[in-house]
Amino acid sequence: MEIGFLGLGIMGKAMSMNLLKNGFKVTVWNRTLSKCNELLAHGASVGQTPAEVGKGYIDMSTVDPETSCKISEAIMSKGGQFLEAPVSGSKQPAETGQLVILAAGEKALYDAAVPAFDILGKKSFFLGEVGNGAKMKLVVNMIMGSMMNAFSEGLVLADRSGLNPNDLLDVLDLGAIANPMFKGKGPAMLQNNYSPAFPLKHQQKDMRLALALGDENAVPMPVAAAANEAFKKARSMRLGDLDFSAVSETLKDLKHST
Amino acid sequence: MEIGFLGLGIMGKAMSMNLLKNGFKVTVWNRTLSKCNELLAHGASVGQTPAEVGKGYIDMSTVDPETSCKISEAIMSKGGQFLEAPVSGSKQPAETGQLVILAAGEKALYDAAVPAFDILGKKSFFLGEVGNGAKMKLVVNMIMGSMMNAFSEGLVLADRSGLNPNDLLDVLDLGAIANPMFKGKGPAMLQNNYSPAFPLKHQQKDMRLALALGDENAVPMPVAAAANEAFKKARSMRLGDLDFSAVSETLKDLKHST
Amino acid sequence: MEIGFLGLGIMGKAMSMNLLKNGFKVTVWNRTLSKCNELLAHGASVGQTPAEVGKGYIDMSTVDPETSCKISEAIMSKGGQFLEAPVSGSKQPAETGQLVILAAGEKALYDAAVPAFDILGKKSFFLGEVGNGAKMKLVVNMIMGSMMNAFSEGLVLADRSGLNPNDLLDVLDLGAIANPMFKGKGPAMLQNNYSPAFPLKHQQKDMRLALALGDENAVPMPVAAAANEAFKKARSMRLGDLDFSAVSETLKDLKHST
Amino acid sequence: MEIGFLGLGIMGKAMSMNLLKNGFKVTVWNRTLSKCNELLAHGASVGQTPAEVGKGYIDMSTVDPETSCKISEAIMSKGGQFLEAPVSGSKQPAETGQLVILAAGEKALYDAAVPAFDILGKKSFFLGEVGNGAKMKLVVNMIMGSMMNAFSEGLVLADRSGLNPNDLLDVLDLGAIANPMFKGKGPAMLQNNYSPAFPLKHQQKDMRLALALGDENAVPMPVAAAANEAFKKARSMRLGDLDFSAVSETLKDLKHST
Repeated sequence: MEIGFLGLGIMGKAMSMNLLKNGFKVTVWNRTLSKCNELLAHGASVGQTPAEVGKGYIDMSTVDPETSCKISEAIMSKGGQFLEAPVSGSKQPAETGQLVILAAGEKALYDAAVPAFDILGKKSFFLGEVGNGAKMKLVVNMIMGSMMNAFSEGLVLADRSGLNPNDLLDVLDLGAIANPMFKGKGPAMLQNNYSPAFPLKHQQKDMRLALALGDENAVPMPVAAAANEAFKKARSMRLGDLDFSAVSETLKDLKHST
Repeated sequence: MEIGFLGLGIMGKAMSMNLLKNGFKVTVWNRTLSKCNELLAHGASVGQTPAEVGKGYIDMSTVDPETSCKISEAIMSKGGQFLEAPVSGSKQPAETGQLVILAAGEKALYDAAVPAFDILGKKSFFLGEVGNGAKMKLVVNMIMGSMMNAFSEGLVLADRSGLNPNDLLDVLDLGAIANPMFKGKGPAMLQNNYSPAFPLKHQQKDMRLALALGDENAVPMPVAAAANEAFKKARSMRLGDLDFSAVSETLKDLKHST
Repeated sequence: MEIGFLGLGIMGKAMSMNLLKNGFKVTVWNRTLSKCNELLAHGASVGQTPAEVGKGYIDMSTVDPETSCKISEAIMSKGGQFLEAPVSGSKQPAETGQLVILAAGEKALYDAAVPAFDILGKKSFFLGEVGNGAKMKLVVNMIMGSMMNAFSEGLVLADRSGLNPNDLLDVLDLGAIANPMFKGKGPAMLQNNYSPAFPLKHQQKDMRLALALGDENAVPMPVAAAANEAFKKARSMRLGDLDFSAVSETLKDLKHST
Repeated sequence: MEIGFLGLGIMGKAMSMNLLKNGFKVTVWNRTLSKCNELLAHGASVGQTPAEVGKGYIDMSTVDPETSCKISEAIMSKGGQFLEAPVSGSKQPAETGQLVILAAGEKALYDAAVPAFDILGKKSFFLGEVGNGAKMKLVVNMIMGSMMNAFSEGLVLADRSGLNPNDLLDVLDLGAIANPMFKGKGPAMLQNNYSPAFPLKHQQKDMRLALALGDENAVPMPVAAAANEAFKKARSMRLGDLDFSAVSETLKDLKHST
């Protein structure tokens, strides 16, 4: 199976490498040519133009539903096939082939891509018409953003009311709401360490888009709206480039938040 | 080791049974004597008065921090020892000895109780002065209540924007925010099934107490506050005796919420 | 002074009538010609096409800042002058010349229009570059929408806690937060009378646009966001075409809200 | 008519002076005797103990409904009569006899006090059973607190989006939501001047008590809850002793809020 791959950022490089290692024939293209070198060494070809890379177009980046629909129309109007396939998961799952793939659009193209998706991810979904992949990602990230706020409020409340926040992390990890995000980010948050895995400004953008989706469909989302304002407050504190867990700083007083 | 056990509701019965099965000598007392019978058959004794049951007093029910401190003072003023030890977990963990025990108060009494706690729970914490056990439970339940709202908003948003909510459950369960509560309650929620495991009115009470704790300590908690108002809305819709996941009904329009 | 007037809805008709009565020469245009008749009887001329009506273009409708800027560019690219001039006030102030005019754009055009604005309104503002008129209106309506929610919460709280809501209206009207909106809409709200003066769906749209403006500028607005979700809840209850005071229905339980 | 007056703070002194000037016979008592001097010079007598001052007891301070009911019971159990009569209005209205009096409790005592209330206020209400005066005050202050947040959000949004906030004040003052609070406090807020007329911590306490009243009666109040969290945020920023308009600081970024 021949695959063209456009865009070799952190995610794209890891993903195309996985394909190469599993015997796929991969042609890559990147604005900055030098980023292709490591993949060349592993057997990739380099395309001269994006157009050369392929006619069945699968967009694995994360864009909003409206943009995705516009791209789809543009490609289909020229006789191409389009599939959106944003992924859930960041650098490490990309490297280990443990992404979750949220595909939507042309079903035939999805079926053709399944062998590649099986390499890239632990699970792929076909979600129907174009836009549904983007929507699903927004819904998941919206829940995640609200949870991060709830978690932050809990950590700060524990600390201010005389509890040891490390005990809270231990208790949470034993109960019904134990989850990888609390376990993974909690200890760093207690150190005020917000190295960006998922930048706060991107999380806030996804909250905004999810709220817009709710607006279109008349779905009230009071908790997401409160969480969104907290992220906006964090942006106003110049924390937009830090990890989205930095939203916890909005809950601290000046003495503590330095 | 001799243990007296006051109160044989769902939790108390399961817990005292576990102690009996593991060789502890248990004296029970209950307002309704008939509830003691099954435990008598397993070797328990029955106390004639609560006072007879024991002088080192461990309160494993969930009360607010202030009440817990008053009980502690009353017992210590008469020369007794007091430990609060609310538990995280409901019926099934009680039966299988998988509770999480949040103890605080008299350290010596905690140390003496550890062999029993090891039977009752998978983990026990000693959290310092009286009130800290209650506070920890409030913090955990507050996070849980906000998460339930975020989850509800996601499920309703998915449904209204043309996604299959079952797909959302599957995607969530594969990602960074996968947790037992989403997995356990999600399918029932999609059936509008809110059989009460943890009644909504109790969850709302814990939100209120957690917010009051935040008020005392000047901790803003905008997401918890929004979640609390949603639970209050649910109470006004006469949903207080259903499971706290019934808060999702507040997000639905009249046609859907019947 | 010669004035062309496009669009003779409730507002436009009242405004052009005021201009005629004060000696202005007015040419009107309306999609439905019959609406021009009453104005003809008062001395207006009728234009054959919108283009014929005038080259200095003043938009007194309410559009969002972005749209206003696009209109401005289109007109200026053809050598015309543009002024946006949304108004604050509804039917009655339009008829009595008591509008507040929020103008922005071409200052020379504003200066030329002042004699007409003096007839139409009790006060006109020149707010600088195009878009500022629209923004000002959004800010005012955002405050108004949050106030309506606060007022609704107070009315329902008074009623449910055993007070006479009419007493609340009287008390409010004597104090520091007395305002025409509470006085004007309060009695009807207590009768569950929501005849639309300003439809809820339009109020919610303005809240959304104001929140978007806050998002662009990283201004957290937690109260407006909560108010917006209440308006969305009202939309989901099919109340969008009623007056925006119908948001109070979101606070009532089923028995009361029938 | 003879009147005893306990407590000569800013409000009490102004009120008893008004009574003296209007021919009432006034006996005063104050913990610090020296504060009675000016009133003595105007013809007041000084009581030796609070008990000496009077048996029909009217509490014009602001306490929560529960406390008011306890005071009432204590006085009635000794054969006394009780009326709660918190006032709306601060120093200046107290001096000029322009308070609004929210009385509840013993109707006979209210009737007897009307001649005095007519001197002290521009209007008095009899609201029924004890507690209703306190509740009415909480409802009014809750609306006021939410309005102050809405106003603050508007002022900051205007400023950050390129409008002149002074224009906003002018526009607001001409429209349907014009009110004395916006007009009175707006200009000072634009100067970051928060001299305390009504301290933020007291406003936040009233929001908390109003929310508690809503909780008892299952009334959701999402906007008040969001406003309350903003006031709590302000408290965490050490702004509790400033005027409640200082809540606007919670919306500003670090550079602006210094």
